[in-house]
Amino acid sequence: MDADTLLEVALRNALASTSHSSCPPKLAAALQYAVFPGGARIRPKLTLAVSQACATGAEHAALAAACAIEFLHCASLVHDDLPCFDGADYRRGKPSVHVEFGERLAVLAGDALIVQAFAVAADYPQIAKIVAQAVGAPHGICAGQAWECEPEIDLVEYQRAKTGALFAACTMAGAAAAGVDAAPWRAVGMLLGEAFQVADDLRDVAGISGELGKPTGQDAANGLPNMVSKLGYDGAMELLETLLGRVIAAIPDCPGRAALAKQIELVSRAMVPKQLARGAA
Amino acid sequence: MDADTLLEVALRNALASTSHSSCPPKLAAALQYAVFPGGARIRPKLTLAVSQACATGAEHAALAAACAIEFLHCASLVHDDLPCFDGADYRRGKPSVHVEFGERLAVLAGDALIVQAFAVAADYPQIAKIVAQAVGAPHGICAGQAWECEPEIDLVEYQRAKTGALFAACTMAGAAAAGVDAAPWRAVGMLLGEAFQVADDLRDVAGISGELGKPTGQDAANGLPNMVSKLGYDGAMELLETLLGRVIAAIPDCPGRAALAKQIELVSRAMVPKQLARGAA
Repeated sequence: MDADTLLEVALRNALASTSHSSCPPKLAAALQYAVFPGGARIRPKLTLAVSQACATGAEHAALAAACAIEFLHCASLVHDDLPCFDGADYRRGKPSVHVEFGERLAVLAGDALIVQAFAVAADYPQIAKIVAQAVGAPHGICAGQAWECEPEIDLVEYQRAKTGALFAACTMAGAAAAGVDAAPWRAVGMLLGEAFQVADDLRDVAGISGELGKPTGQDAANGLPNMVSKLGYDGAMELLETLLGRVIAAIPDCPGRAALAKQIELVSRAMVPKQLARGAA
Repeated sequence: MDADTLLEVALRNALASTSHSSCPPKLAAALQYAVFPGGARIRPKLTLAVSQACATGAEHAALAAACAIEFLHCASLVHDDLPCFDGADYRRGKPSVHVEFGERLAVLAGDALIVQAFAVAADYPQIAKIVAQAVGAPHGICAGQAWECEPEIDLVEYQRAKTGALFAACTMAGAAAAGVDAAPWRAVGMLLGEAFQVADDLRDVAGISGELGKPTGQDAANGLPNMVSKLGYDGAMELLETLLGRVIAAIPDCPGRAALAKQIELVSRAMVPKQLARGAA
């Protein structure tokens, strides 16, 4: 079984208990719909890659961390798409959960995914704490979203909380799963999250539907901050290049450092929209 | 410090990290608003009472379980009050969270409370699993709420999931915190939850604003199942009496059994609205 298939099987198994025959059928269906088929699964793959680079044989803990993080990511997308937030009708190339199942089931599916993430990670207290920090208040995804409700946005804090924190959880939980010190891995994730956000902003402005299959031009439509409007197109591209270099440099020493650097470089390159890459025809 | 004050202090401490100065101010305020001042705090008090009846010296674990359960209860109230569900404007005698802070912050505060519950319980994997079961899918609060989205409601499964499951988590997590087998404690919580639901239905129909300070007549207004409409007033009162007897009988042997039975009886009596109690003038 290749690594991608292994991850999908792990996600299916980790979600299986929620779809027990006694679950209200629409909720069970909404949970499956929110998680499958996935986007690029960048976060769980990063988690597994870091764990493998740090040590071998920690597969169970690493998969638990990867599944928990992907469920939390999916939950954040479901709630973020709600009419009271972005009101996005499409996600991952299909109608968003609230469009397909209604608003009530979208709220509940998001809630149940958060709960299931912690059920899956419960046997690993350190991993549970790392992912909780990445999604709750004051520094996680909820806080990131909540900056959108403030009269003045702290742009750095906003993007760190909304995007960086969960990437940092990937690298830190991956290290923790392998039994090594998680703290030095924080910077890699935060920088990668920052790069990812810039790439996402570039795609949004350039009108290129990216990894998530969501509509473009949303930031302007929703009055959200965007790095391209702040730095201009060339400035944003330059920032992205700089960040990708810093990501690689920040990887701590570990047995699989070279292979991990290569893998992260590949993922990072894939972030830059082909249509925007330097030297593209 | 008396037991009630100790619990409030523990709740404040467990929520404190979310209100760090870097948290978006409105989210921090909404989180405090959702948890303080509380209702009767029946669930965390039950958790602590069971733990103390089973063993002494497990205070840290028991308080963690109690705080996690209360946060999850508060989260469920915040999301349940949203316009897409009950659309309740009042809760615990004040405007509900979405009325005071807007719908977006109500969604986020609920999410962040779920996350914080698991952050608080992270050091106790068994407790984390017990509370996850009580709030997620297929048998927890999310599933209970989701039955309201189905064309046909399984009334027994609905009330077990929506109310019984979290009461069962109280008794089971209390036992687990004390280091004893949690399974025999499930029945006490489920029966107590059932009794609580019947008492709530009686208050709703009789127009008596109960523990939660919420408007009455909501079940009929929202087309939700209610035991009084099913069994009639006398039938519902009789069922309540029977259930309370079964709760006491179901308490497993433990060092503090007699004191716990007395405490649960007091709580149970308080559930029956005075205006409805037999023999009331």
